Amino acid sequence: MSLIVDKTTGGREYKVKDMSQADFGRLEIELAEVEMPGLMASRAEFGPSQPFKGARITGSLHMTIQTAVLIETLTALGAQVRWCSCNIFSTQDHAAAAIARDSAAVFAWKGETLQEYWWCTERSLDWGPGGGPDLLVDDGGDATLLIHEGVKAEEAYEKTGQLPDPASTDNAEFHIVLTIIRDSLKTNPKKYHKMKERLVGVSEETTTGVKRLYQMQANGTLLFPAINVNDSVTKSKFDNLYGCRHSLPDGLMRATDVMIAGKVAVVFGYGDVGKGCAASLKQAGARVIVTEIDPICALQALMEGLQVLTLDDVVSEADIFVTTTGNKDIIMVSDMKKMKNNAIVCNIGHFDNEIDMLGLETYPGVKRITIKPQTDRWVFPETNSGIIVLAEGRLMNLGCATGHPSFVMSCSFTNQVIAQLELWKEKASGKYEKKVYVLPKHLDEKVASLHLGKLGAKLTKLSKDQADYISVPIEGPYKPAHYRY
Amino acid sequence: MSLIVDKTTGGREYKVKDMSQADFGRLEIELAEVEMPGLMASRAEFGPSQPFKGARITGSLHMTIQTAVLIETLTALGAQVRWCSCNIFSTQDHAAAAIARDSAAVFAWKGETLQEYWWCTERSLDWGPGGGPDLLVDDGGDATLLIHEGVKAEEAYEKTGQLPDPASTDNAEFHIVLTIIRDSLKTNPKKYHKMKERLVGVSEETTTGVKRLYQMQANGTLLFPAINVNDSVTKSKFDNLYGCRHSLPDGLMRATDVMIAGKVAVVFGYGDVGKGCAASLKQAGARVIVTEIDPICALQALMEGLQVLTLDDVVSEADIFVTTTGNKDIIMVSDMKKMKNNAIVCNIGHFDNEIDMLGLETYPGVKRITIKPQTDRWVFPETNSGIIVLAEGRLMNLGCATGHPSFVMSCSFTNQVIAQLELWKEKASGKYEKKVYVLPKHLDEKVASLHLGKLGAKLTKLSKDQADYISVPIEGPYKPAHYRY
Amino acid sequence: MSLIVDKTTGGREYKVKDMSQADFGRLEIELAEVEMPGLMASRAEFGPSQPFKGARITGSLHMTIQTAVLIETLTALGAQVRWCSCNIFSTQDHAAAAIARDSAAVFAWKGETLQEYWWCTERSLDWGPGGGPDLLVDDGGDATLLIHEGVKAEEAYEKTGQLPDPASTDNAEFHIVLTIIRDSLKTNPKKYHKMKERLVGVSEETTTGVKRLYQMQANGTLLFPAINVNDSVTKSKFDNLYGCRHSLPDGLMRATDVMIAGKVAVVFGYGDVGKGCAASLKQAGARVIVTEIDPICALQALMEGLQVLTLDDVVSEADIFVTTTGNKDIIMVSDMKKMKNNAIVCNIGHFDNEIDMLGLETYPGVKRITIKPQTDRWVFPETNSGIIVLAEGRLMNLGCATGHPSFVMSCSFTNQVIAQLELWKEKASGKYEKKVYVLPKHLDEKVASLHLGKLGAKLTKLSKDQADYISVPIEGPYKPAHYRY
Amino acid sequence: MSLIVDKTTGGREYKVKDMSQADFGRLEIELAEVEMPGLMASRAEFGPSQPFKGARITGSLHMTIQTAVLIETLTALGAQVRWCSCNIFSTQDHAAAAIARDSAAVFAWKGETLQEYWWCTERSLDWGPGGGPDLLVDDGGDATLLIHEGVKAEEAYEKTGQLPDPASTDNAEFHIVLTIIRDSLKTNPKKYHKMKERLVGVSEETTTGVKRLYQMQANGTLLFPAINVNDSVTKSKFDNLYGCRHSLPDGLMRATDVMIAGKVAVVFGYGDVGKGCAASLKQAGARVIVTEIDPICALQALMEGLQVLTLDDVVSEADIFVTTTGNKDIIMVSDMKKMKNNAIVCNIGHFDNEIDMLGLETYPGVKRITIKPQTDRWVFPETNSGIIVLAEGRLMNLGCATGHPSFVMSCSFTNQVIAQLELWKEKASGKYEKKVYVLPKHLDEKVASLHLGKLGAKLTKLSKDQADYISVPIEGPYKPAHYRY
Repeated sequence: MSLIVDKTTGGREYKVKDMSQADFGRLEIELAEVEMPGLMASRAEFGPSQPFKGARITGSLHMTIQTAVLIETLTALGAQVRWCSCNIFSTQDHAAAAIARDSAAVFAWKGETLQEYWWCTERSLDWGPGGGPDLLVDDGGDATLLIHEGVKAEEAYEKTGQLPDPASTDNAEFHIVLTIIRDSLKTNPKKYHKMKERLVGVSEETTTGVKRLYQMQANGTLLFPAINVNDSVTKSKFDNLYGCRHSLPDGLMRATDVMIAGKVAVVFGYGDVGKGCAASLKQAGARVIVTEIDPICALQALMEGLQVLTLDDVVSEADIFVTTTGNKDIIMVSDMKKMKNNAIVCNIGHFDNEIDMLGLETYPGVKRITIKPQTDRWVFPETNSGIIVLAEGRLMNLGCATGHPSFVMSCSFTNQVIAQLELWKEKASGKYEKKVYVLPKHLDEKVASLHLGKLGAKLTKLSKDQADYISVPIEGPYKPAHYRY
Repeated sequence: MSLIVDKTTGGREYKVKDMSQADFGRLEIELAEVEMPGLMASRAEFGPSQPFKGARITGSLHMTIQTAVLIETLTALGAQVRWCSCNIFSTQDHAAAAIARDSAAVFAWKGETLQEYWWCTERSLDWGPGGGPDLLVDDGGDATLLIHEGVKAEEAYEKTGQLPDPASTDNAEFHIVLTIIRDSLKTNPKKYHKMKERLVGVSEETTTGVKRLYQMQANGTLLFPAINVNDSVTKSKFDNLYGCRHSLPDGLMRATDVMIAGKVAVVFGYGDVGKGCAASLKQAGARVIVTEIDPICALQALMEGLQVLTLDDVVSEADIFVTTTGNKDIIMVSDMKKMKNNAIVCNIGHFDNEIDMLGLETYPGVKRITIKPQTDRWVFPETNSGIIVLAEGRLMNLGCATGHPSFVMSCSFTNQVIAQLELWKEKASGKYEKKVYVLPKHLDEKVASLHLGKLGAKLTKLSKDQADYISVPIEGPYKPAHYRY
Repeated sequence: MSLIVDKTTGGREYKVKDMSQADFGRLEIELAEVEMPGLMASRAEFGPSQPFKGARITGSLHMTIQTAVLIETLTALGAQVRWCSCNIFSTQDHAAAAIARDSAAVFAWKGETLQEYWWCTERSLDWGPGGGPDLLVDDGGDATLLIHEGVKAEEAYEKTGQLPDPASTDNAEFHIVLTIIRDSLKTNPKKYHKMKERLVGVSEETTTGVKRLYQMQANGTLLFPAINVNDSVTKSKFDNLYGCRHSLPDGLMRATDVMIAGKVAVVFGYGDVGKGCAASLKQAGARVIVTEIDPICALQALMEGLQVLTLDDVVSEADIFVTTTGNKDIIMVSDMKKMKNNAIVCNIGHFDNEIDMLGLETYPGVKRITIKPQTDRWVFPETNSGIIVLAEGRLMNLGCATGHPSFVMSCSFTNQVIAQLELWKEKASGKYEKKVYVLPKHLDEKVASLHLGKLGAKLTKLSKDQADYISVPIEGPYKPAHYRY
Repeated sequence: MSLIVDKTTGGREYKVKDMSQADFGRLEIELAEVEMPGLMASRAEFGPSQPFKGARITGSLHMTIQTAVLIETLTALGAQVRWCSCNIFSTQDHAAAAIARDSAAVFAWKGETLQEYWWCTERSLDWGPGGGPDLLVDDGGDATLLIHEGVKAEEAYEKTGQLPDPASTDNAEFHIVLTIIRDSLKTNPKKYHKMKERLVGVSEETTTGVKRLYQMQANGTLLFPAINVNDSVTKSKFDNLYGCRHSLPDGLMRATDVMIAGKVAVVFGYGDVGKGCAASLKQAGARVIVTEIDPICALQALMEGLQVLTLDDVVSEADIFVTTTGNKDIIMVSDMKKMKNNAIVCNIGHFDNEIDMLGLETYPGVKRITIKPQTDRWVFPETNSGIIVLAEGRLMNLGCATGHPSFVMSCSFTNQVIAQLELWKEKASGKYEKKVYVLPKHLDEKVASLHLGKLGAKLTKLSKDQADYISVPIEGPYKPAHYRY
């Protein structure tokens, strides 16, 4: 795509694939609203008081139908919004079109190049001369990273006059980040400092982004307050688990139509995501083998009847490989060479470095046959045998299907709304330092309770006597902080 | 589409949506071949002797990637093939294109009108002046029906000079059938008689078609031998059950992206198809309610923890309704009016009369909003509340997704190949009368055994002593005919 | 036990372990009645007309609480009853006591020797000078066998004057059978002939007994009509499947308290019994491996995510071995030697020859340590490593627990009542020849329908139009004979 | 039982039901050792250094076979041990006999009266003139309670000369506690002070006991350090969950033989215990309904396909009721009156006040029919309809079956051993204050890893690079403290 910003008739900026899909997007957004009771309840509760009046929110989070409902919840509460996706394949173009046309400045399309991806990220952070956003919704931490790297480079430049050198890294993506920063430094040497000054805080969506935040907190380099939405129970124990249980087989089916029953599937990692993936593969009739580094999670897998082995043990007999670790170098090209013909290799973790895509792409003589977008067969010259890689090693549920379904994302995103409200409300109170916070349990419970009615559930009420007996308030919260659910 | 037959450069007829998708179809056919060991083994075993040399085979069966592998197995064994789909939405256009270009005369595309559908059926039966096919592969019995109705009309015409009157029926589809027959009668008053004379027999794929055949056998009107492939164990206990377990959630997800977990789902009928549907919905986290007329199947549902109720009991609280009965008038428009907003209504039985589509379409003031092809929201004027109907009431797994996966279709289609071989081999022997037959158990077992290696299974061998003890041959068959698996 | 018959004050014969348990048995019988709606409905429907008036029924079937409800249903319908168990470990002594005291002549206790077992069988067949029973309820066919062997020996004796020679067999159990027959021959050389003359027919409960009957039918040696109750759908697809799903883990837990989760379990045979066993082991968290000779059943196992291998592949790594084949020599002592220390070996098939108990017992230097009755640890001298054998290789669910639960046995036994009624009603009509019959489908459906109300189920009713459309009567039967459920 | 202490020939005190069961107990202990790799590894690792040399350990924890292996691990590490059970029905008499004969002073039998129960507790705390134990292993906190109440009464007595008045409470059990303390006060007014002085700390096993400890910590009344073993992941997420998944159906089957399939079961509470119970009931074919006060747990239940309702909604149609809440007054006698005939009511939570046993026992005209020990039918006079109550409302898995299986208890008890070692090692260091502690994560992971080999699992090892990437040590711990598993 030509990287030139478009404008709506009303003057709002955007860059999307195909504005004619806006009507289709709108229809699916309307369906999703019925499935997202937490977000709709937030609109009903907070809409009238317009708490985000005056707030600029930038989001870097998969631009899907569900995210569209989140964005329009933020705008319904008074915010102005700019948005990009946090993955090159995860945008649903009809969702992007509908939001770009109706509600917010969107820079996102399915199948961005890395260059385009970071251009979109920068666009979503650029609120014009007045600086950056007031609030950040991040997923994986790329927007947060760009600001932190920008500030770091500006400081170095101020001290030493030295511009960042893209050639200093052999990581293709970081090369782009440094280039972007270098280019802005020349014209606006305080751009990221100004951004940081204005920024009230970030709410981070996912395990990987949270890990980065805690590392920065530990190093003392975190530049603004952060709310860890991922570790709300109603996020990580729902979206990560039940979302993946839904969307992993969805992605497999849409990409390959493969029969899961009877197959041997290897799930790398048995955290929340791995648990969801293993559950759905098992239920679909696969024989599931888990790899783990953590003996506790390994023992959990065993208790569910899953075998725990290493990749080496099963590399040549398994049919489906799914990485969920959040770590890197899980499946290397040397492993892929040993696999059965047409073994399926995919990743549902946040980043694409779980699978050694670089090793595969640069393997001498390897042949790539694109069956359809996001489904490639890679054939090794020695064996003339191929493997099938989904979404080029990126999040396969978003690359090959439509990600998690609305209902579970309503849980996650209601946490996002609450986190954003909290940061904004306390912007001047000093309540939040440059640290990582989780939402209090009563808000977590509130998110859950907003989703019960839709499913026809009725809660039991404690009597005063019973509440006293177990030492909790009648209205909750009901569990100690360390409770694991 | 304009109903004009196209021709390949080699002169073979076809009518498909988009010939440019042939390469894509070929790539997916190649993937499917790896998943269809039974068909590939048939090619290896029978290909060299070309048993179908000289045979003309017409097929009326969903023109999917899997069917493409079946067709090319038939041609690999020497047959000439003409093909149409047996459902207006079930064709995969890239599969049709690849076969039309490379292997057989195909008349099929996704989204045919009924008029187009029957045109395609007629085309597939038309082998030119020499009459019709030698063999028929049928699914649901429409090709068989056309021939039987044609012969009946020709006999009536011969006796009475009376042409069939399309106006005599208010069934829209039968109206078209009568029109086709009437038109051919004028020019070729023995067309269907000639077809019947030539026809060695039919092998029928599905429960609904088999039911029709047994009715004709009972009435003494069956015109040629029929092999009931559906009731091979390796068909009905695999394709119907495990195929639907796979493709029902696939269709739901592709059509609606709805979260199945937490929802209340009603499955109408607990036969093989219903069992597969209920299993996958339950495993995905739905609460499943079954309706049944048969107390035995009802008791089976109860033993699996499913509730058995009537539609009336649950119509206003369920989220997803799936018909699998093979019967008609299961969900009427009066029921749909009582449903929750955005309740999903779909059918996975062979015919579309399980759901009262006519009642819905003609309901005064009803509004149809097409979200995307095969996903419609119908809004009732009284309540402004809508329901979502998939694939216009037709087979949702084929209309909204890609049908059953290759592996399980390999079981079904290997039975088809064996049935066709058997009919052709015995064409002159008189072994098969104008009756319905099932394949002998040793062939059923053979089909299964061809699929074990792919899944890494190893069978145990009986000793002579053990075989004698249970009175079976060492090599099988291992079970009495009445065994239920 | 001293083999002397006891008598109640009313003069009815019996031999049970402990008459003081009769009250306890009565309490459990009363609980079971609530769980056995089919039998209670039979009492209500047929009790008033006393159809069994004058009929003598002998039963050879596990003398459990559930069987007690069956017996008292037969007596409530007017029959006189004598009963023995069909397995040395399957009697529940409190059930036997209650029935012996209150309702019928019982000869059964838990832990019979083989000698005692056959004495009980003979006692139950001995109705005094007037000959044997009018009707037989058999399970596994031992009573039927005794009569057939008796008749055979009497014929030989009549022709040749030769008595049967127990020394002619090295089968310990058949040795006893021949001895019994020899002894009666001396005093009553027409005993079994008279028995056969009087006998109207037998209804057989289980797969193994049915197999024997079909063999006799094939050989032309069957002496009286037989109804195959096992192959009623409401028997084999319920009792065999759901009964074993319940009672296999029950037996494992009571015998060994072993944690099933995390273990590797091997199920030999994937018929109805094997399917039930595999399902419950999998659900309890075991990793289940199936062995099969039949490729169809093997493929079913694979579709459920189970691995299919041979015993050799897994003998040294599995924790639990369960035979369900109905065949013999499944686990030999040479296999047991290779097993892990404390591997559990058990059988849930009808006969104890699936496990090579003779080989184990006679293994040089093997040591048997009885943990508790029916739970033995056998230690091999070479390795000092042991295996745990349940119920001495006999039906572990009846030997180590209480067999199948009442509800599912109500289905099976209602079929028995119906079969007995049918045989008795048609005793003079010639309807039943010396062949094996199954009950008609409408009776099978009736049995199911009698069990729905208890579980709160509601059936849907066909309209006339719908019934015609699928060509069935509104009231059923709903399926063709070949339908597999 | 007469409350007179017995002595072994070696002079060790005990009081058990039947010393002749010691051999049987020993055999089962030997089987259990093979299933308890964590405890056996502890013996191997720590046995040689005798770390508990000189330590007196009192335990109040179900005196089962598994606990026997724990006790003998403590003695193998050098400790002297006195033990009682923490539930009147949970002792396995053969385990108690074996330990009493061979290893430790045991005061426990199945079916204690409350009077006897507290006598046993007092005996286990009485180490003679030198004061009480050095260390306490507690389960539910009764031993801890007795010491705390004793100290409180002694302080009051010292200040006011006032003895505690048992009549001051209408709680039957607390009446006994006060009586015991009053009686000791007269003769030994500093008994509990001395006990407290000596006591190094307690390790508490279960949710209920831990709740009490945190309450005391909050009130500032905790008298000694406590380690919360329950909240080790390898305890609460294993024993509570997988243990109950195993032992709930075991208890139901042994007590009632009821068929679970097809039944409606209500599980009160969806914490770890409730999750385990619901899972096994669902898998056995029941339709499971959950009641919850906590919206998060309620939403988890819904995601698994379970219905969430209140007791009122289902009281008259459910078949099985299981309380798991840790709260009181869950099922009242007024509820029980509305239940179906022979509905089963049971509790698997720690205390018996979840079910209103007092209300039931004192209901006018109610009739109790003991089917067998721990299985009672209670008949209401108005309806002549009964319910079946298991284990008199106490822990049904221990009252009616044998509790959790060895393997999962090995996880729990290895945590106990580690906690006791830690307390003892740090007895003089001041590391532990009068607070509640959990074990550090690396020990939790160690417990898990000790249990992997037995199940044939292989862990994957992190590379240095990977460990750095996710910021964990190669050897673990692998997760942040807040991780929920």
